[in-house]
Amino acid sequence: MTIAKALDALAPLLGERLSRSKSELAHHGRSESYFPQTEPDAVAYPETLAEVQALVKICAGHGCPMVGWGAGTSLEGHGLAVRGGVVVDFSRMNKVLEIRPADMDVTVQPGVTREALNEELRATGLFFPVDPGANASLGGMAMTRASGTTAVRYGTMRDNVLGMQVVLADGRVIRTGTRARKSSAGYDLTALMVGSEGTLGLVTELTLRLHGVPEATSAGICAFPDMHAAVTAVMETIQMGIPMARIEFVDAATARAFTAYSGMEMSEAPHLLVEFNGSPESVAQDAERFGEIVADHGASPFRWSAREEERRALWALRHNGYYAILASRKGARALVTDMCVPISQLAQAVEETQADIARGSIPGPILGHVGDGNFHAILLVDPDQPAEMEEAKRLSHRMAERALALGGTCTGEHGIGMGKLDYMEAEHGEGWDVMGQIKRALDPQNLMNPGKLVRQG
Amino acid sequence: MTIAKALDALAPLLGERLSRSKSELAHHGRSESYFPQTEPDAVAYPETLAEVQALVKICAGHGCPMVGWGAGTSLEGHGLAVRGGVVVDFSRMNKVLEIRPADMDVTVQPGVTREALNEELRATGLFFPVDPGANASLGGMAMTRASGTTAVRYGTMRDNVLGMQVVLADGRVIRTGTRARKSSAGYDLTALMVGSEGTLGLVTELTLRLHGVPEATSAGICAFPDMHAAVTAVMETIQMGIPMARIEFVDAATARAFTAYSGMEMSEAPHLLVEFNGSPESVAQDAERFGEIVADHGASPFRWSAREEERRALWALRHNGYYAILASRKGARALVTDMCVPISQLAQAVEETQADIARGSIPGPILGHVGDGNFHAILLVDPDQPAEMEEAKRLSHRMAERALALGGTCTGEHGIGMGKLDYMEAEHGEGWDVMGQIKRALDPQNLMNPGKLVRQG
Repeated sequence: MTIAKALDALAPLLGERLSRSKSELAHHGRSESYFPQTEPDAVAYPETLAEVQALVKICAGHGCPMVGWGAGTSLEGHGLAVRGGVVVDFSRMNKVLEIRPADMDVTVQPGVTREALNEELRATGLFFPVDPGANASLGGMAMTRASGTTAVRYGTMRDNVLGMQVVLADGRVIRTGTRARKSSAGYDLTALMVGSEGTLGLVTELTLRLHGVPEATSAGICAFPDMHAAVTAVMETIQMGIPMARIEFVDAATARAFTAYSGMEMSEAPHLLVEFNGSPESVAQDAERFGEIVADHGASPFRWSAREEERRALWALRHNGYYAILASRKGARALVTDMCVPISQLAQAVEETQADIARGSIPGPILGHVGDGNFHAILLVDPDQPAEMEEAKRLSHRMAERALALGGTCTGEHGIGMGKLDYMEAEHGEGWDVMGQIKRALDPQNLMNPGKLVRQG
Repeated sequence: MTIAKALDALAPLLGERLSRSKSELAHHGRSESYFPQTEPDAVAYPETLAEVQALVKICAGHGCPMVGWGAGTSLEGHGLAVRGGVVVDFSRMNKVLEIRPADMDVTVQPGVTREALNEELRATGLFFPVDPGANASLGGMAMTRASGTTAVRYGTMRDNVLGMQVVLADGRVIRTGTRARKSSAGYDLTALMVGSEGTLGLVTELTLRLHGVPEATSAGICAFPDMHAAVTAVMETIQMGIPMARIEFVDAATARAFTAYSGMEMSEAPHLLVEFNGSPESVAQDAERFGEIVADHGASPFRWSAREEERRALWALRHNGYYAILASRKGARALVTDMCVPISQLAQAVEETQADIARGSIPGPILGHVGDGNFHAILLVDPDQPAEMEEAKRLSHRMAERALALGGTCTGEHGIGMGKLDYMEAEHGEGWDVMGQIKRALDPQNLMNPGKLVRQG
């Protein structure tokens, strides 16, 4: 039972698509975040379900860990082979298999990225809305239960994965879900797999829900005197049933970084960026009503537009937010946090976090998906100063504890991976043991992405 | 290890709230459907989490089955103690614990019914939208993953349960989910529990998502030349992004039954009943646009109204649909089927089902939630003619197989219970074994609602 024997057995199956080259191992040992370089023993590039199944059976037979890899954009080290073994890179399983416009769904292979899917959908009048920022793979997005700017309207991966084909740890292949929009037929294995971070199996196919491209879109921006005013305005908007497609918060530090990066002038104050989808009449009406609400909370006049170029400029600003913030401190690396709390607790959560950051020595601009109660501090550390990374980790730790104290979760959309293992006990109590029982029932050898999500023995 | 010993040990815990009276046993041995009377050994009425936990520990210690009971409105025999033991009736755990208007959520005990919850919410401007017709308990609705007429807009119980408190088979208590609107923190235990039919634990508390009462509502009805035209109109409406709050189909036989029952005149043709929620302007606009679409498909003029009394009359008609159909054959009992297919397959599914019913001797009017691809045939049998029930079961069997052949599910919203066990293998393949592995991991003695959902050894 050795990894070496597994690799010997995999070689004839995959030929050149089993790589042990230095550059491949280095690339698949990197994380987008602060985790140390952790290289696997080999990288496999399967092209078919049959190959994945054969690979899993060989690895299972030799006790060799298997770690799925999509686009490598995880922020919590999900793709790192911390116990060695094979990284299974799905970049060659990147086909859109079937688009069904009448059912507004699509079946894809896991290596398709969200941008590639939307490119393929362009002529159909449909789109896939989940948008975590990065051009992540859809398999990876499902496995981390990703979301992003549009979750307030279209939901997260939990809501937009209708079914999956999964190769389990013993090589069995299951299909979860059906193509019906709903079902009461037994345990919801689709929901169990979404967010399971590759610890229960490797996903080889996904059926996703699509949405109609809105006939019209309006988007705009306004500044607030403080965070409380911004959050209160968002709560009122939700309660009045005005359907926002995106509602993003940026704090004063982020506004300053945006101004420096883009040249678009923003006052150094908290802002909301908002978008409405619908008919030309409804998006105009929604924007007008939103403008009235925010005015009641002391906001600057709500500047909005239904013109595509202006909307694009606004969202380019938001999409480049991470890079704008990174550029605000020369040579910095980022530790990105991911608190999510009930919306009634959001203003307090942000304010306490800002105060905590202000007491320290490193900058940490904040931005987030205010409609979901989810926000990120981008903690900017000098990579040559280990003490700064330690300070960032302490800040991140206090943010996770603050999220739990306020009734929220330690991760809204980035996942557990290795980075959030320390909070699972506090967040789930004995529920974490239940997750471990499920893991052991389905992967008794602990070969599927070991070292992640469940309690480590 | 006997049930009798468990009951002896439960008596001091629950006193008079452990009942073995004939009438109690008879009441909890009944199903709303065709299953034979199946009485438990006792009925327990716990009032607190501590009592449920103590009950579970006692039953687990003596090998005594435990079966949850909400309002007894299941159509698939979920509440029947087919292996004896204790029915745990949650009617005394019927408190709305906390309403949080700012977060638009509520925490309730499992015995609260959906109507009682909406009554309590009346002053808040919020409501709980899931509406399966019956005034079911919210615990029961969660456990069967119920939905109903509003799922096309507001989702099913899968989408509206944010978290649960559950007593597991060994007496451990877990809380699933947090009060944050989304999370990527580990396996989605909430989704695993929703639809688990009491086979993994007893739910003692639920946190539910609430929605704003719409400012305005419009509703209307129109007749179609045939099923195809009706379904095509619905698909176009969805694709154009016109947000329907309800979209219900009734076939010609149901329209005839409605006319006879209510006095409201409907032509003997397929009809759609539809509702829109929003602002006064948007619901008028939605109704007008819908009227244009259905006119293109040969429908009768779309008669709609935003006046409450007219809307109420329309939905009273639909809500009484089951009784109207039952009344259409004197003395009949009903077997209610529950196919759900991709919407592109819906017209074919309904037409084949109608033709199948027409070839036989028993009436089976059809109605359903056309926006979800979910419909029910109400098969009306003479209880004095056993051959008719056999024919109804054969029809039901062919409907379930037809649903699977068309890419759908054997149950859209009623659940598996005992009635749909025969289709789990065909629908899920090895996925059904995975459900069994999860069940055994969490309930190795098979004491939580045995005989339901998973493969029976």
